[in-house]
Amino acid sequence: MLSLASATMGFSPGAPMRTSVQSSRPAVSMEAGKSVIIGLAADSGCGKSTFMRRMTGIFGGESKLLDIGRETNTLVSDMTTVICLDDYHKWDRTGRASNPEWPDGITALHKDCQKWDKMAEDVTNLKAGVAVDKPIYNHITGELDPDEHVEATPIVIFEGLHPMLDDRVDAALDLSIYLDITDSVKFAWKAQRDIAERGATMEDVQAAIDARKPDFSAYVEPQKEKADIVIQVLMSDVVPDGSGKFLKVKFIQRKDCAALESAYLMDEGSAISWTPNAAKLASEVGVKLASYSEDWYGNPVDVVEMDGAVDKLEEIIYLESQLCNTGTKYYGELTEQITKNKDSPGSDNGTGLMQTLCSFKIREVYEKLTA
Amino acid sequence: MLSLASATMGFSPGAPMRTSVQSSRPAVSMEAGKSVIIGLAADSGCGKSTFMRRMTGIFGGESKLLDIGRETNTLVSDMTTVICLDDYHKWDRTGRASNPEWPDGITALHKDCQKWDKMAEDVTNLKAGVAVDKPIYNHITGELDPDEHVEATPIVIFEGLHPMLDDRVDAALDLSIYLDITDSVKFAWKAQRDIAERGATMEDVQAAIDARKPDFSAYVEPQKEKADIVIQVLMSDVVPDGSGKFLKVKFIQRKDCAALESAYLMDEGSAISWTPNAAKLASEVGVKLASYSEDWYGNPVDVVEMDGAVDKLEEIIYLESQLCNTGTKYYGELTEQITKNKDSPGSDNGTGLMQTLCSFKIREVYEKLTA
Repeated sequence: MLSLASATMGFSPGAPMRTSVQSSRPAVSMEAGKSVIIGLAADSGCGKSTFMRRMTGIFGGESKLLDIGRETNTLVSDMTTVICLDDYHKWDRTGRASNPEWPDGITALHKDCQKWDKMAEDVTNLKAGVAVDKPIYNHITGELDPDEHVEATPIVIFEGLHPMLDDRVDAALDLSIYLDITDSVKFAWKAQRDIAERGATMEDVQAAIDARKPDFSAYVEPQKEKADIVIQVLMSDVVPDGSGKFLKVKFIQRKDCAALESAYLMDEGSAISWTPNAAKLASEVGVKLASYSEDWYGNPVDVVEMDGAVDKLEEIIYLESQLCNTGTKYYGELTEQITKNKDSPGSDNGTGLMQTLCSFKIREVYEKLTA
Repeated sequence: MLSLASATMGFSPGAPMRTSVQSSRPAVSMEAGKSVIIGLAADSGCGKSTFMRRMTGIFGGESKLLDIGRETNTLVSDMTTVICLDDYHKWDRTGRASNPEWPDGITALHKDCQKWDKMAEDVTNLKAGVAVDKPIYNHITGELDPDEHVEATPIVIFEGLHPMLDDRVDAALDLSIYLDITDSVKFAWKAQRDIAERGATMEDVQAAIDARKPDFSAYVEPQKEKADIVIQVLMSDVVPDGSGKFLKVKFIQRKDCAALESAYLMDEGSAISWTPNAAKLASEVGVKLASYSEDWYGNPVDVVEMDGAVDKLEEIIYLESQLCNTGTKYYGELTEQITKNKDSPGSDNGTGLMQTLCSFKIREVYEKLTA
């Protein structure tokens, strides 16, 4: 537990340890037969499954749940395995609510509610190309089910609340991504779903968010400081209606990540704000993009940003024409991937664009490390 | 005088006549042996001579004062003739100050202080390729000197206070340009010169500007509504020190001018704001550019804008790399022209860039009309 404690301590503002953790990631090559490990940190209900579908899609082959004849969270394709970190919850739903160690209960967000040693063991084995028998958290029953056997594929994604919290797990990540849904968007999305579809009140929604807030702030959110890539979802400035239907999405890229080359708009290293030609890009609500460098918790980052939504997905080719270092293999591949997932939420806005861009960056890192 | 009265009347807001005057300009071709006529409206002390040097420079050959063995304002080169409209003042300095028709005196800015019939006759003849004997206003003595003989060159520029005020002169212009020095810049420039170099007080400067203001507003300024191109010089937003040393310069291009294709940054029809990569463009004070469309007195225009200043003129090649439809014949020609005039005021900022860009647009119009 010592290493865990120090990992958590490491989040204190200004601690230089965070940077050193990150820079220890492999930069240019890795041994054959091993897997490339991607960490994706995100809260639940944030569109991770859509993101994972976009990502696995570009590696080809069909993506489906692991065939174990019972409930699983593990998604596999020829090239990829997506492991949900909820599977490493220490207690089941009952055990979290009523627990002799935690008289007031413990949330699934808490650092003391995860099986860190097992998670570290599994990530280390999978990275080395070794199959693992890993636990399962059953989201339907809320129970801890028997282990499942998972083979190492060329790419293994650890997605969930805390892929970067434990130093051993974090050190195994070849690329770390944080999906940052800002508070106002989270509230609007939850309100939309819970009020419209489940009959909740505004107060219920706020109470549910408030209850999760302390542990989220303590254990999940600090990871965004150290992620190599952050996809930040904010309320739209183009359509400031507060509905959460229109979004501004930032693709934030650490400059000191050796395996990453930053994507940018039009001219590398410039600060650019771009309202596309309306004759080339139909948009009822408007579209605005930007590209610039800034500081992200003391580290230099490159940002590409999209606000608003397009009317016709195929016209995203025009946006692609001005995007550089996207990691695509040919002009049009970005647009092709977005239109392939045309029915996925966010394909017409910055979430679809940045999740797809991020997927190409994952492929770029994978190919760089396995070259 | 009837036509003159109606020309002045035409400036009333919303009068549709202005647009129709402009659209009557030749769009695609002209007869051989004739001259292309450019009108450049600007107040005195606004850097017109620098602009004219930049412009005549790109047509090649040496530019010098007409050789008449006495004081002249006419500047000639193989291809170009620049005629100063002050030469058409109706009265000499004494005649303006003490005049039976104008008991309070009349300024050189007033419409009734110009020889419109002679100006219209001369512009019409020169446009047809016919030489003229034209008046001279001697800026040193303030007297009206005997006429000078001026041949028609392929390009004739009428520069001065009112090239667009008389309908006959305006109709003869193949391209009209307005050099718009905004009030705050004009004051700062005049203060700099008159206070620092001539011992004037701030009050003297303001009084001098105020005295010219009514006639300037009545007869000079309205021309900016109808010009095909306006070069507008404003105080810098990048260095908002109010000194007039740092400037934001807009290159404003009418969309309905058939002979003109608008220059733009990076992507046609987009709205772009651009802070160049500091590693490619050294600038102690900072540089910011923009490109967008807007409304200019009811007419659609395309704008390219530069704020701030560069440290090294040769690095303007980087700005040139992102400027499209400049009218240059090869990549680098814009930078080459600016560096050729490196000692001219404004070469490191937007005035030099936009005057040079405007010069290429003049060449483009000339070549289109004589093709």
